[in-house]
Amino acid sequence: MRTTSGWLAGENDPTLRRATLTRRDLREDDIAVRVDFCGVCHTDLHSLRGHRDTSLVPGHEFTGVVTETGPAVTRFAVGEPVAVGNIVDSCGKCAMCRRGQENFCAEFPTLTYGGTDRHDGSPTLGAFSREYVVREEFAYRLPAGLDPAAAAPLLCAGITVWEPLRALGAGPGTRVAVIGLGGLGHLAVKLSVALGAETTVISRSAEKAGDAARLGARELLLSTDPQQMAAARDRFDVVIDTVAVPHDLGPYLRVVALDGTLSQVGHLGSITLEAMDLLVGRKKLTSAGSGGRTGTAAMLDFCARTGVTADVEVVPSARVNEVLDRLSRNDVRYRFVLDLADLD
Amino acid sequence: MRTTSGWLAGENDPTLRRATLTRRDLREDDIAVRVDFCGVCHTDLHSLRGHRDTSLVPGHEFTGVVTETGPAVTRFAVGEPVAVGNIVDSCGKCAMCRRGQENFCAEFPTLTYGGTDRHDGSPTLGAFSREYVVREEFAYRLPAGLDPAAAAPLLCAGITVWEPLRALGAGPGTRVAVIGLGGLGHLAVKLSVALGAETTVISRSAEKAGDAARLGARELLLSTDPQQMAAARDRFDVVIDTVAVPHDLGPYLRVVALDGTLSQVGHLGSITLEAMDLLVGRKKLTSAGSGGRTGTAAMLDFCARTGVTADVEVVPSARVNEVLDRLSRNDVRYRFVLDLADLD
Repeated sequence: MRTTSGWLAGENDPTLRRATLTRRDLREDDIAVRVDFCGVCHTDLHSLRGHRDTSLVPGHEFTGVVTETGPAVTRFAVGEPVAVGNIVDSCGKCAMCRRGQENFCAEFPTLTYGGTDRHDGSPTLGAFSREYVVREEFAYRLPAGLDPAAAAPLLCAGITVWEPLRALGAGPGTRVAVIGLGGLGHLAVKLSVALGAETTVISRSAEKAGDAARLGARELLLSTDPQQMAAARDRFDVVIDTVAVPHDLGPYLRVVALDGTLSQVGHLGSITLEAMDLLVGRKKLTSAGSGGRTGTAAMLDFCARTGVTADVEVVPSARVNEVLDRLSRNDVRYRFVLDLADLD
Repeated sequence: MRTTSGWLAGENDPTLRRATLTRRDLREDDIAVRVDFCGVCHTDLHSLRGHRDTSLVPGHEFTGVVTETGPAVTRFAVGEPVAVGNIVDSCGKCAMCRRGQENFCAEFPTLTYGGTDRHDGSPTLGAFSREYVVREEFAYRLPAGLDPAAAAPLLCAGITVWEPLRALGAGPGTRVAVIGLGGLGHLAVKLSVALGAETTVISRSAEKAGDAARLGARELLLSTDPQQMAAARDRFDVVIDTVAVPHDLGPYLRVVALDGTLSQVGHLGSITLEAMDLLVGRKKLTSAGSGGRTGTAAMLDFCARTGVTADVEVVPSARVNEVLDRLSRNDVRYRFVLDLADLD
């Protein structure tokens, strides 16, 4: 076993404390990664509040540098910059894996933390840590030109909105609305704009109009203004709903165009809606989360060509508990990224 | 005013009794239709059970012959066979009407019964009646070769499943599943097969396997057999769900393919589902009902070319109450059609 340092929450304890962590010795197709930057995701908050009888190391969108390679590794060499997201393994054999959608693996993919290693049964510990060991197949080359700190959130927040934008055909000639301008939302706007779609932000905060414009959005619709929402009826081919709490989908479905689609990516619990809100205009409801290897690689390539990264506030990892507290109050524009160098 | 005979339910009374009905004098663009055949829809049952302080004449999928035309009518002549569905008027100006989707009219379309005439404010009375007066724009030429009795259900049941099949691209190379083999379901199977899609029936009744095969389906999946349902995971590009009562969508969403769509057309109330059932496989949920003028005309043309009509049991209209009772017990294969000639 190898040892490293990281931020660990003990059983029944939401507070992260510095601890020595163990990582597995490299298997044939493993690489060891020195974690430089790790984004802070709402999932981390949920996991810290929800875990009970196990200890937990969060962190599942990170960038770093390869420090060691297993004997069968062919894709990476020591010293290369890499990025890893929230999936670190899958069955590799089911129809979804064969289509490059390991995030939908029939056996459920192995999550970067809070999962169980498919080979030795050990719990996976996340990347709020100075080192991570991962199968090379689930690491991505970080393209030159992408800032490693600002690129880290692409690996979870980015791919989560990239997949529905691509699957729903966002591009020139399509009208996209993004509901909520936060970690997911601001990347959805940037990616949608870079894809060539006419992009609108729907928000409760008129104050975000400036940011929306800076990110490339054509306008900001105030969701609290019934007149603005009524005027936008049947307007958007694609709506990416990043609101993180349960909410009435009716008003948002009404701004979806004929045969258009609303993808809910922010709240993943039970959904209740009226069939008539889908029927009138044959509107579709879907959801998305994370991505497969094919899509993730394509997104990183696209971001390198178009210069899309997250707007980040980079913070030394020792301030992780303060960061989580601020995130719980949505006090960030638009993604916290931990700098793990202080763990050396 | 004109008078005719029909089957009317008085206030707070679900029983239909023969009555003399009045129809408006023909306006400039009206035609009068001698109603020969009218299908019996589940909506008729719901309306009869639900109406309170108004009398009601059901019936909204019918065929007949033009008996008189208003002075501005250009599309029809006396003696021509016509068909009418569940919409008889709309604003004609909104974006949906301009796209030929009058069923989604922003001002809500005028329903064939239980609606309110847009010009004189009178309540619309349905086609369980020997005569109907309708704007020529909302009547369709009944193509030669289509049996008028078997064609009547196309105008509601048929178009309700035709629209999602077309909007979702059912055709050669796509795999379609139809849940429930009833009035809507049997037409969904026939239309899907005629469109060239590989078509499967999902049913609780193994006894319907023979009918499914006769209608052109490749197989019948037993929804009560977890093994069969598990083997069909992620299989169907398009699923048309015709089940008329509230039900758990989870098992049916699991047989939808990656990026595929389930269209719920049978039950139109509240829907509750888990976002994860949409997320895993980026599956879409939609709904459909009725159709616009463009789609209805296209469907009738398609049915004339392919010979698709409903499997009907034609019954003299005097037996309408018995028919409704049998329909409430699903005792019909697959659509009742009233023969209105006995009203003469």
